[in-house]
Amino acid sequence: MNKVTVHASERIDDLLTNDLKIIQSDEVFSFSMDAVLLGRFSYVPPRGRIADLCTGNGVIPLLLSTRTKASITGVEIQERLADMAERNVQINGLEHQIRIVNGDLKEISGELGHGSFDVVTVNPPYLPVPSGEQNVNEHVAAARHEVFCTLEDVVKACSRLVRSGGRVAMVHRPSRLVEIFCTMRQYKLEPKRVRFVHPRAGEEANMVLIEALRDGKPEVRTLPPLIVYKNKTDYCDELMEIYYGRREQLVEPSEGIMRDLT
Amino acid sequence: MNKVTVHASERIDDLLTNDLKIIQSDEVFSFSMDAVLLGRFSYVPPRGRIADLCTGNGVIPLLLSTRTKASITGVEIQERLADMAERNVQINGLEHQIRIVNGDLKEISGELGHGSFDVVTVNPPYLPVPSGEQNVNEHVAAARHEVFCTLEDVVKACSRLVRSGGRVAMVHRPSRLVEIFCTMRQYKLEPKRVRFVHPRAGEEANMVLIEALRDGKPEVRTLPPLIVYKNKTDYCDELMEIYYGRREQLVEPSEGIMRDLT
Repeated sequence: MNKVTVHASERIDDLLTNDLKIIQSDEVFSFSMDAVLLGRFSYVPPRGRIADLCTGNGVIPLLLSTRTKASITGVEIQERLADMAERNVQINGLEHQIRIVNGDLKEISGELGHGSFDVVTVNPPYLPVPSGEQNVNEHVAAARHEVFCTLEDVVKACSRLVRSGGRVAMVHRPSRLVEIFCTMRQYKLEPKRVRFVHPRAGEEANMVLIEALRDGKPEVRTLPPLIVYKNKTDYCDELMEIYYGRREQLVEPSEGIMRDLT
Repeated sequence: MNKVTVHASERIDDLLTNDLKIIQSDEVFSFSMDAVLLGRFSYVPPRGRIADLCTGNGVIPLLLSTRTKASITGVEIQERLADMAERNVQINGLEHQIRIVNGDLKEISGELGHGSFDVVTVNPPYLPVPSGEQNVNEHVAAARHEVFCTLEDVVKACSRLVRSGGRVAMVHRPSRLVEIFCTMRQYKLEPKRVRFVHPRAGEEANMVLIEALRDGKPEVRTLPPLIVYKNKTDYCDELMEIYYGRREQLVEPSEGIMRDLT
């Protein structure tokens, strides 16, 4: 492991895959199941260029690095988070593959190159600014609410960065699916695959994974639903495989993983 | 049972609910699971006015009549089918509740009354005319392909007929979900509830139920998925209840019911 600075408010967690480590902080940003599922759901080319917008502490670039040799650029507007992402790249010795850019996705496509990415991934803030209780912590608020960018800003940035025929993968709240579909189509991103995540059988979806094709033809596939818990306490086999690489649950999942399920 | 004419090519089937009977014909139109699920999924007011577009042999008005005292108007463009629907109303003695109109949904809103329905249901043709093999039988072709009306025509007609705050319920192929959402929104129908139907666990959805609110605010709920078969041969409990009013399967489902699942 490379030597990197870890601040007092931070901790180093296992990323639970390929022995990756990740610096997190409940004060600022901790990854959750959304990121893990997006990191699995997204198509990745064996080589080429991937951008991850709203990268936070860089969790998705780290996860994607286990699946491809493509170069990955993570974009984060908050300096403190971009710095944490940068240290996460270093702690895992991935400087040759992952680059972190501290910048605003609304203005970044010129610098990074219009239409120059094969894949763009994004786990954007889910909530419009006026709705719901805004988090008092500015960092957490910005990760959850559309403080720095709206859904339209995000979709527009994805559309600018991805090449024609390239893919954009997003995780979001299913309650905004109509807006997501219509905005994607407006920016020439045609949704091609969607997968709904339901906490339990018989419950409504609380997460959706969407993959769109730049300049694609209309026709979308709805994949089998992911039902997170197979009973009151145990994850379904698919999640057990993702988190532990096996079908039996031997340890309690960490709080970060559980956050969005309760 | 009232005396009605049944033609040589036709047969009388049980509608499997409330002792309703239905005249069908493989030459012309037989109902399938889509109609049964839409008849259950749609919200119905206890009283008021309901319109069912693309009513075919009137299966959805018959099903809805078991759930409400509202007056129901079925609209069908094909004369032979509208006649069959009319006889289906008579055979069940439902002339006081259901009216069948032989007309074109593109031109019907003036006659039926703009914004005069509390609910509009529709099981439209699923396939654009150019795609796929067109059925050689003109009646079946028109029920499956957009020969007489496009998706936009259907959505526009629903939007015109339903009152502000009223609901539109549609069953369609999930592959066209993006187009459905965007067209609905264009005509001020905001999708509020969607439910995906998967033939089996681990398989993609092949049917979707959508309910939209005229002039509604954006926010859509994704209901628990309906998985049709719980194993290789048996329907899930929910379908057993719908078809047989019990949880055990004692008889083979009829061919009409099975059509869209194979």
